[in-house]
Order: sequence, then structure tokens, then C-alpha cells
Amino acid sequence: MTPAATNAPPGPVLDLNADLGEGFGRWQLTDDDALLSVVTSANVACGFHAGDPSTMRRVCERAAERGVRIGAQVSYRDLAGFGRRAMDVPPEELADEITYQIGALRVFARAAGSDVTYVKPHGALYNRAVGDAEQAAAVVAGVLRAGGGLPVLGLPGSRLHEAAASAGLPVVAEAFADRAYTALGTLVPRRQPGAVIPGPDAVVARSVRIARAARVTALTGEEVAVRARSLCVHGDTPGAAQLARRVREGLVAAGVRVEAFT
Amino acid sequence: MTPAATNAPPGPVLDLNADLGEGFGRWQLTDDDALLSVVTSANVACGFHAGDPSTMRRVCERAAERGVRIGAQVSYRDLAGFGRRAMDVPPEELADEITYQIGALRVFARAAGSDVTYVKPHGALYNRAVGDAEQAAAVVAGVLRAGGGLPVLGLPGSRLHEAAASAGLPVVAEAFADRAYTALGTLVPRRQPGAVIPGPDAVVARSVRIARAARVTALTGEEVAVRARSLCVHGDTPGAAQLARRVREGLVAAGVRVEAFT
Amino acid sequence: MTPAATNAPPGPVLDLNADLGEGFGRWQLTDDDALLSVVTSANVACGFHAGDPSTMRRVCERAAERGVRIGAQVSYRDLAGFGRRAMDVPPEELADEITYQIGALRVFARAAGSDVTYVKPHGALYNRAVGDAEQAAAVVAGVLRAGGGLPVLGLPGSRLHEAAASAGLPVVAEAFADRAYTALGTLVPRRQPGAVIPGPDAVVARSVRIARAARVTALTGEEVAVRARSLCVHGDTPGAAQLARRVREGLVAAGVRVEAFT
Amino acid sequence: MTPAATNAPPGPVLDLNADLGEGFGRWQLTDDDALLSVVTSANVACGFHAGDPSTMRRVCERAAERGVRIGAQVSYRDLAGFGRRAMDVPPEELADEITYQIGALRVFARAAGSDVTYVKPHGALYNRAVGDAEQAAAVVAGVLRAGGGLPVLGLPGSRLHEAAASAGLPVVAEAFADRAYTALGTLVPRRQPGAVIPGPDAVVARSVRIARAARVTALTGEEVAVRARSLCVHGDTPGAAQLARRVREGLVAAGVRVEAFT
Repeated sequence: MTPAATNAPPGPVLDLNADLGEGFGRWQLTDDDALLSVVTSANVACGFHAGDPSTMRRVCERAAERGVRIGAQVSYRDLAGFGRRAMDVPPEELADEITYQIGALRVFARAAGSDVTYVKPHGALYNRAVGDAEQAAAVVAGVLRAGGGLPVLGLPGSRLHEAAASAGLPVVAEAFADRAYTALGTLVPRRQPGAVIPGPDAVVARSVRIARAARVTALTGEEVAVRARSLCVHGDTPGAAQLARRVREGLVAAGVRVEAFT
Repeated sequence: MTPAATNAPPGPVLDLNADLGEGFGRWQLTDDDALLSVVTSANVACGFHAGDPSTMRRVCERAAERGVRIGAQVSYRDLAGFGRRAMDVPPEELADEITYQIGALRVFARAAGSDVTYVKPHGALYNRAVGDAEQAAAVVAGVLRAGGGLPVLGLPGSRLHEAAASAGLPVVAEAFADRAYTALGTLVPRRQPGAVIPGPDAVVARSVRIARAARVTALTGEEVAVRARSLCVHGDTPGAAQLARRVREGLVAAGVRVEAFT
Repeated sequence: MTPAATNAPPGPVLDLNADLGEGFGRWQLTDDDALLSVVTSANVACGFHAGDPSTMRRVCERAAERGVRIGAQVSYRDLAGFGRRAMDVPPEELADEITYQIGALRVFARAAGSDVTYVKPHGALYNRAVGDAEQAAAVVAGVLRAGGGLPVLGLPGSRLHEAAASAGLPVVAEAFADRAYTALGTLVPRRQPGAVIPGPDAVVARSVRIARAARVTALTGEEVAVRARSLCVHGDTPGAAQLARRVREGLVAAGVRVEAFT
Repeated sequence: MTPAATNAPPGPVLDLNADLGEGFGRWQLTDDDALLSVVTSANVACGFHAGDPSTMRRVCERAAERGVRIGAQVSYRDLAGFGRRAMDVPPEELADEITYQIGALRVFARAAGSDVTYVKPHGALYNRAVGDAEQAAAVVAGVLRAGGGLPVLGLPGSRLHEAAASAGLPVVAEAFADRAYTALGTLVPRRQPGAVIPGPDAVVARSVRIARAARVTALTGEEVAVRARSLCVHGDTPGAAQLARRVREGLVAAGVRVEAFT
């Protein structure tokens, strides 16, 4: 019996996304197999901050086998800095770099019988595109040129989402289970104390509250509205897959349907 | 009135290919616009030995405008060596690197309203795949995975062509207008004296003879059979576009149809 | 008879510096030999925005032969962007990247019988270190760690010069012959109209006036004081060496001694 | 009382070396602190196959604090392949790449109050320089140009050692505790079954036998003479530091003095 068949209102629905394939050659970072058994959407690194071709192929193959959605995790060209250093890339160049990365991932996704079905900027580019209209527009231009009208995963209210919506691309609102929020609904920068939520219980509780109440408590105590169709769980920390699993189980136990966005 | 409609036998037909887009960021090497007004097939660098995303986009756009065929010029990952240093890349990795490069170029070719319609290895990989069956097979595996059954441009009789044919991929035989041949029909290595044909007149004469008689005179004097559907003119030397134009004019004057392969 | 031996006051003295060795592998940009016959100080690229090891060795050998001073032209790690894209590199990392580049150049300078005797940031790092105290301090920390108390070439009044002076490093004031100035004495950004001084005559005239009167006319018409012990002539444009030679000849003809700083 | 002051013959002496600093930015591989508490010589990656500037600085600082000797672990330029893919680098270029890496590490070693006191090629370059006289000579040319007459660590009888000795550089013979040998005294290639010695007990026993008897049993059963002044323990596998510690303890328990070469 599906929820729609009952009299009770259907529970909320949430996608679970994580960064995958963030190794490079000899160096491996993310426990891709374990994460793929938990998440519904895989943000796959495309070679600019991480992600060699063989890793990209393997992650695409395994995501396809498990029915996990494949997204292009596009980044500044910065292997040495793991894409975490903001760069003043001229918009035209940035757009072309985005298109390049989507194309490179798409060939592996299609070879695996799947496809790239969304785009999410990584690291410093993600943060920059929240408030920088020029770079946000460049990312969107790169996504548009890649074709297929790919949805853009990002913070609701961000310049990135504004630019994507203006260009006619679908946007998918994202929240973070393991990151502290400001009173304005933005993320507390990583370098500030308290930026990362400690302990799996707190992360699970926040996840459920985001899903069911669309709210989080800011670092400074205020209640903040947080609208999300997708929840990001980080993949590049020890125990990440384990934490992601607990978040998923907590969501399901609270009546949340964990399903990819469409 | 087309040649086929006359009683006279149709003249021979030859494709003219050159390497394009071999700059990287601030550094530009090939006179892409001039070459695109001469050749029928553009071997576009895909970022591993040369070719930044913006250059790839521009070359694809201009090739599409002029009706020049776009091919993926795939290479070892070696910007510092311009892909001219043979590398013992494990076959699986090599195949994935080939697939990646094709995907990255394809997205720009399609955005320009065209497509990647063939593959040609660059530099040291081209030379290695002549005689190394393992690397030849890896290149073919990478092409296959990219989908579309792309033709492989290369030396007739090479391991690369054998592997491509075994895998059911079309092969296109290529000859070189400005390189000396050995008595066995292979190219004289670049480091040997006499490896490069000096003077445009000699290059044009050889081109015509390849097209009309399928023969060249080897460096050591023997007559060698050289079968070719495509003729390579080099793009990365000063005066390259000028030389290519003279070759094309010489071919046309000699009754050769200069047309892309199909 | 040296100027000091005459009754006439000695003319002003100016160092002439240019960026050299800004190729990478197959790609060459600067006419290093021609520039080395003109300048007194060579800013040698160290591999992060340009400059492969073989080019670094050759430039050092030729600079040593001609008695041209060798400086480390340190940059963000950004081959694709030629070091022209500002990057938010954490200070500690940036300092280490500076030290690395100095060390890499020093071994070639010493092998050539010379040494690295100053440091000049390149491109976006140069511009960023004018006003960004944190990055300026990081550059200085990297120079200090490299040892030898190397002088830092830069804009007078810049954060870079302040940080260097605070740390006890010598500073060398630099002016630009071919760039327009604002009324505040800073450079007009490259993207603005009029940023580059057109025509060799104007460049030569400005050079002489900087040397003799320590003044330039700003783009907006004001007279601006410009103190300089070194004058930068750009090396990466066509005709750069020719322009540099005219500047040198113009300076000498106007009684300016063209000599490296000490 | 030193061993030399007793009547008993002095025990054999062995250096213990390991590869360190083989991370790159976000990716870390080797447990540098743990290894530095065990080994007497640290082969520090210099940025070509691994090793970012900050990691190089940290490893040098900690090696200096502990009195561990610092060596330059020079490699082909191949981050994507971790230096494990043989490359046909022209000798002059290869020599310059070696010099560059030594210079880059030296500045950090000296800043830490220590110095680079030997050179050891990494991965594919190490293997290639065993039998390829041209590349061996290029490595030696690069070491010579770096100055200081640095000793070269390598397999006794290798082309690398021959070239180094011919050039007047000291050579240090190395053996491998955890790798199988052929009957000829060379290493069994990694891809062959049995190439890696399983189990710490076997590794310790082989180490002691190399130190005391200068012999190992080849994979095919023969007794092989193995002369070594330094023993390599691998650092890039899980449990590497633990295994290295057991080897050291086993050597000491067997009366072997574990000391850096001089």
C-alpha cells in the first residue's frame, strides 16, 4: 500500500546526495561503494578538483547498477587545492570549463547505461556561486551549452539558482545535515568554530527536522526556514558512509521517503 | 555534372587532415582559422597534450561553420611533453583516458551543431599504437566505450588499425605529405636526418603522387606503396597553413577531389 | 671617465626588468635571447604559471653569460590561466609555494654560476599583493623561508612592500613604462580602455620622464609621482624585445644609467 | 663504549629508508610522523609524482627535528600515474627535471636546518634506470648539475650506479625487505604473483638475513647475494609504519646497527 493510497497525508520526500569519486590516481578519498549503497544521487568529480577517468568510469558503472542518479560535480581547475580555493576565472573560460567537465562525465555515464542528470558545483565554486552573480551566470552558461537542460543543485536563494531559473533550467534546493547555519540561512564558513555539526545523533536529528519541519536552529540560536528537496551528506571524511547510513535510516524511521528528485 | 556522370573515370579522392587547437591557455600554436579554410578534417586536441576548453569550443564552432569534420585527437596525459613522450600506461587506464577525451570534445562539437566523427591518436601514442598491440587495443577499447562506432584514422597495417577492424570500427588509411618514409612504408623517425620533407614543392609533388599513384619514394630510394584516404598536413609549424593551402591547390589542379571521408 | 668623475651631477640610474622564460614545453612565448641583450634583470618563470625546467636552465645560463641579474618570478599554481587568475590560497600554502619556486630556480641559477638575487610576484599574485595584506605577508614569509634575504620587487606603497620592509627584506620600487596609471599612482586595470600605452614613442617618453622627473601623467590627466629604481618592460607581446631596446636607448640618450639595483 | 672498542667484531650496519610525503594537497598517503620515528633516511617526494610544497616543508621540518637524513625522491612528471608509468623523456629534459626537483626540496631541507644529502629515483624511473643507460645517465647529469656531489641510492649493479660512479658520485647499495628477488638479484616485477613478501615475520627474517648474511632466497629458490648499505621499507601501504618498526626492532635484536650511511 503506497502512502498515496492511505488517508494520512504522504510523508515528505528527500533526496540524499554525496560527493563521490574524489580520488585521483593513486590517491583515494571516498568510500564510493559504501556511499552508493546509501545515497540516491552521486555527485561525481570530473577531473578538475579530483576524479581520474578510471575512477569516473567505475563510479558511473556502480551508480548505474544500483540505480543511483549521476550528477556532474563541477569545479575550478585546481587539483593541488582540491577545488577549495576561490579563483577569479573569467566568465567565458569558466563556462567552457564547466561544459568540458559535464561532457567528460557524460560519456562514462552513458557508457554505463545511465546519464548525467544534474549538476552541482564543488567547494569554492559552490560557495562563490552563492553570492557572485557573474560566476553563477558562467556556471549556468556552461550547463546550458552542455545541453539536456540539466537541473542545478544548490542553495535556495543563491545567485546560482537565480541564474539557472532565469535561463530556464530546473533548480533543486539543497540543505546540509552536518553543517551549521547562520541566522540568514547560509552556511557558517568552515573555518569558524562550530561550523560542522558534531556527533551522528545531532546530524540525524537535524536531517529529520529539515525533512519534516523545514527548519534548523542556527548557530546563534534562531530558528531558520530551510527548504530542501535534497540533503547533502559529506563523503570525504572517515566514517562518512556510516554517518550517511544513519541519516538515511533516521529519515526513513521518521516517515520520510528517501527518493531522488525527478 | 558530377564526375560519376561522365565517361571519364572519376579522379581519386583524398581527405586533408591537420592538428588544430593545440594551444593551452595563454599559449597558442596553431593558426586554426587559416587551417580550417583549407582542411576537410580537423584533429582537435582534447586537453591532455594541448587544448583548453575555450580553445576546444572555438575550434568546434568554426569547424562547424565551415563544414569541416571534427575528430578527437587523443593523447597521453602529458602537457609538459606535448604528448610526444611514450608512456607505459596500463591498458585499462589508457582506455579510460581515451574515452574521457572523446567525451570532453563531443560536448563542444554537439553544442556547435556538429559532432565528433573520428578519432586520431596524437604524437607518441600514434607512434606507439603502430606496433604495440596492447596499447592499440586500449585505444580501441576507449573509442568503443565512447559509443558511436567512431572511425579510427591511422597508418594502414598498424596494430591500431588491426585492433579497430577486429572490434568492428571503421578504419581510415592515412599518409603524410611532409614526412619521409622507410622502405617498409613506415615513417622515418623525427630525430633522423631527412625525416621531414623540405620545401613546399616537394611536399606538393609527393601529395599528388600519393593521391594519384599511391606511391612514395622512400628515403633510401625504394618505391613504396602508400594507400591513403586521408592526407595529414602538419599544423604546428610556421607557415603550416600556407603549406596546407598549396597542397590542397596542387591536389585539385591534379584532378584530385579533396573531400572528407564518410 | 665615469659620471662620478665629472663635475656634472650624476644622472639618474634605472634597472630594466622583464619577464622571461614564460614558455612551457612545446609552447614558447618570450624571445628570451633578445630580451637578455637589453634588460639588466630577468624575472624568470619558475614552473607555476609558466617555465619548464629546461627553459629555466637555459634562461639562467644565458642570463649568467650576459651578466643579467636573475630574479624568481613567483606565481599562483595556474598553468591553464597563466597565473592571471587571483586565487584565495591559504597563507601557509601560498608561502610554501613561493619557497618551492625560489628553490627550484635557485638550483639552476647557481649551476649557471649565478644566483637568484630578487623576487617578483607574477600576474594576479602581483596585483593581489598590492592591496591584500594577508597574501602579501604570505609571499614575504615564503621569501624569508627561502633564505638569503632576497629583495622584493614591487609597487612602492604596496602591502607587499610594507610586509617585506617589516620583515627586514630590501624592497625595490618598480614602475611600468607601458601601462597607464590612475591619479592614485596605481595601475589602470588591464581590462579598462587605455590601460596599455600605445606606440613605442610614448612608452620611451614616459620611461625617460619616470627616470628623470619621477612623474607620469595619469590616464585622467593628473600628474602623479612615480618613484622607481627598476622599470618593467613587458616581454610577452610581439615586438617586446624591440620595444625594450628602444626604451633602453631612449634612457641612455637622456643621460640615464641603466644598471641593475644592488 | 662503542662497538669498535670491544674485542667482539662490530655487527653489520644498515640504513633504513622509506618513501615519505607522498600525498598531494587534500590527499595524504604516508604516515609520515610514524615512519620518521623508525627510519634513518627519508626519501621525500618533490612534487612530480606526489608531494605538495606544504607537505615537503613539514616532512623536512620533522625529519630535521628527529635527525633523519633527507633525500630527494625524484620522479617522472606524472601525478596522475604516481610516477609508476615509464616515460620516454628525452635525456636533457629528464636531467633538468631531476635538477628542478632537487632544488625544490633543498630549499625546504635547508630552511629546516638540514639538507638534501642523497637522491633516490622513484617508481618507474627507478626501475627504468636499472637497465636503461641513457635515462640512468640523464638522472646522474641532473644530480651533478644540482651540485653537492649527492650520493645516489639504488640497486647495486644497476646502470644508475654505473653512471653515478663514472661521474664520481658516491653510490649507496640498497635492498628491499618486502619484495621478492629473481635468481639474478633483480626485483620480481610487482605484477607477478609472489612479488611482495607476505607477512611481517617473513619480512623481518629477510631483513636480518640481508644484513647479516648478505643473502636472500629468490622466488625460484636459489640463494642470491644481496649487498646493501640501506634497506627500503615501503611507506605507502596500510600498516607500513608498524611493519617498518618491526623490521627495525628485528634488526637491532639481531645485532645490526641501524644507522644512516655517511
